[in-house]
Amino acid sequence: MVERRKPIKVGEAVERTMQYAISGDVRSISIEEAYGHFLGEDLVADHDVPLFNRSPYDGFAIRSEDTKAASRENPLPLKVVGEIGAGSVFSETVRENQAVRIMTGAQIPDGCDAVVMLELTKEVQIDGETHVRIKRSFQSGDNISYKGEDVKKLDVLAVKGTFINPGVVALLATFGYKHVPVSQKPTVGIIATGSELLKIDEPLQPGKIRNSNAYMIHAQIKRAGATPIYLGQFSDDFSTCYQQVHDALEKVDFLITTGGVSVGDYDYLPDIYKKLGANVLFNKIGMRPGSVTTIAELDGKLLFGLSGNPSACYVGFELFTRPVIRTFLHCSNPYLKFEKAILGANFPKPNPFDRFVRAHLGYEGGRLVATPTGLDKSSAVSSLALSNILLYLPGGTRGYEKGMEVDVVLLEDQEGTTNFK
Amino acid sequence: MVERRKPIKVGEAVERTMQYAISGDVRSISIEEAYGHFLGEDLVADHDVPLFNRSPYDGFAIRSEDTKAASRENPLPLKVVGEIGAGSVFSETVRENQAVRIMTGAQIPDGCDAVVMLELTKEVQIDGETHVRIKRSFQSGDNISYKGEDVKKLDVLAVKGTFINPGVVALLATFGYKHVPVSQKPTVGIIATGSELLKIDEPLQPGKIRNSNAYMIHAQIKRAGATPIYLGQFSDDFSTCYQQVHDALEKVDFLITTGGVSVGDYDYLPDIYKKLGANVLFNKIGMRPGSVTTIAELDGKLLFGLSGNPSACYVGFELFTRPVIRTFLHCSNPYLKFEKAILGANFPKPNPFDRFVRAHLGYEGGRLVATPTGLDKSSAVSSLALSNILLYLPGGTRGYEKGMEVDVVLLEDQEGTTNFK
Repeated sequence: MVERRKPIKVGEAVERTMQYAISGDVRSISIEEAYGHFLGEDLVADHDVPLFNRSPYDGFAIRSEDTKAASRENPLPLKVVGEIGAGSVFSETVRENQAVRIMTGAQIPDGCDAVVMLELTKEVQIDGETHVRIKRSFQSGDNISYKGEDVKKLDVLAVKGTFINPGVVALLATFGYKHVPVSQKPTVGIIATGSELLKIDEPLQPGKIRNSNAYMIHAQIKRAGATPIYLGQFSDDFSTCYQQVHDALEKVDFLITTGGVSVGDYDYLPDIYKKLGANVLFNKIGMRPGSVTTIAELDGKLLFGLSGNPSACYVGFELFTRPVIRTFLHCSNPYLKFEKAILGANFPKPNPFDRFVRAHLGYEGGRLVATPTGLDKSSAVSSLALSNILLYLPGGTRGYEKGMEVDVVLLEDQEGTTNFK
Repeated sequence: MVERRKPIKVGEAVERTMQYAISGDVRSISIEEAYGHFLGEDLVADHDVPLFNRSPYDGFAIRSEDTKAASRENPLPLKVVGEIGAGSVFSETVRENQAVRIMTGAQIPDGCDAVVMLELTKEVQIDGETHVRIKRSFQSGDNISYKGEDVKKLDVLAVKGTFINPGVVALLATFGYKHVPVSQKPTVGIIATGSELLKIDEPLQPGKIRNSNAYMIHAQIKRAGATPIYLGQFSDDFSTCYQQVHDALEKVDFLITTGGVSVGDYDYLPDIYKKLGANVLFNKIGMRPGSVTTIAELDGKLLFGLSGNPSACYVGFELFTRPVIRTFLHCSNPYLKFEKAILGANFPKPNPFDRFVRAHLGYEGGRLVATPTGLDKSSAVSSLALSNILLYLPGGTRGYEKGMEVDVVLLEDQEGTTNFK
């Protein structure tokens, strides 16, 4: 007897899944390792930046009032009373008609309130003493980077859950984080199912295909920010399969299976969920590909039963598993962004179901253009290499035409958003 | 005596640098490690995909001619003569008014030319034998994924130098690449200069700042696809510094120094280049920030003398070092993409020099919008965390206003392009 499943909306499926999303632990790593991790705590400034008034240029620190009468016709000489390398400090106070040679980044000496760029000056000797000739007047504050103008002490510069990019690393270094609190990456197990699957290095055989989903998901898990563990392929025997899932759950934060969730006679997952006593959140979604995506929960631990079709597997991971991973990483924006784009090709055939089509995002004259990559079949693999978005085509009675505005899901964006669509 | 340097255009500076860009070696790694590397060779299909005509659905394989007269009013029974699990093969030829139960992905048996989805059928017993009732007619080819429709044998599916994303991993697995030829990542050394620099865990001191550039560049090198080695900070003594650079060149494919290239009295790099006998390609660029960026070459090995200002350092790396790294990785698109965007804020002050301003790329109604992040000063660090583009503002006599179309450089794009701008 064939089980009749009732499809739910994709948004509802995401919502049911996210009810079981939890945050993980925080650990400390060295700053050299931090790129590509996620902040486990807010990054807070421990001091003002700049910490002191400093010179943004090589030049001379001066008192602006001494330059009031200076002009090209009437250059005024100021006596050079010292020099300040970056990192050193001038200990005296600069007095009337005096100047101090100053390097980029060095602290402005007491008494001075402006900097003249080196290129605008000329050094001259007067009575055996070095002077610098100024050819125009300056205002108080000219060419000074003020204490705290960039960052104020206790400013939150990046919130926890932020992807650590090179700019975040610069901030971490500036504020003394030799060790960085980062979110512990969740461990995500992968079990591939399907008696048609050959191992990657097995020779091809009639009726069989090589297992590509497991490796694809392995990479998607890394892109999402988690740690994959490939636990191998299912055997053909139900009780062995059951034991594999049961044992895997002990080792991982989440478990992904690929294949075996359909209504075919060799699809063991539904019975495994039953025997485990897992709570099946849904087993049919009104979307293509991936309608048979099944997600279950056992003692709060999520089991993602992704479809065995490569594109369905790909889409199911990005829509359901990724936001759970990002929540584990403390991201307050765990969902992929939906944006508007111009459709770059025709999709004339209407489809009653919401579709998510692998596509390539390009730009033309400042607009986003989404072009489907390769065949629109859930078995297609050639399209995946170029895909950096999913085209979202709501189901309905009409097709889509090139030039129409459509929604796209950004797969390579690190910012995310707070809500699904 | 202050050296007067003649600025060159940024495009010319990139061109002079890229004359010394070379490709690196290729090595083999396991497919599990491949994500985030770059293909060292073209990825070529070793077989058609699908390898055989297969079923995209669970259902029944049939002969379409048997269904010509089938309708809702006149459902026709076909005798079920067997079943094919995914991965197994039906050994006989299917004859008139016969059908075979078939699983998703399984090979279409001889004699059949269409598949009926399971949901559209009903099994019935007739004279003690299982039949499936078909309620409409089918065309030859309905619901069949044909051999080679996705990929043809010998198709190049991704060229060498391609960033290995999850879709590329799926292709590698499909075509049996248990080991993947990847581009050897270049080793890029970093030496930080500046007597104002504190180590990351030193307490703050008057006139000094923590060394953030070295760690920022460390992360930028990783983002670009190379392997960073931090070689420490310069001492204050010229001959020790010279020896540090000399020794570093033995260990790395390229060397980056931060700071020390200006015309300040403590800027040692120009003299070190001279003493090494290095060929200085340029030491002044008509751009802000980073005008003092200096690039030299010694026996074909590039020395990147980046500015000590954080943003100038950041920009200099992305414009000059990144395309050299990508060339080493065999990318035929080593340059960052320039795209059009709408300016999200005013830049009223004109500047005679071409500017590259750290900015954030967002999307509004399908258009790219570029908003500067934080202060437009080359010393600003707070802006860097949000930056995912550089705003390119050509120098001239007028400022820029919110809403104008501008060029932006995409920093997080993996596709790149063949030419600078």
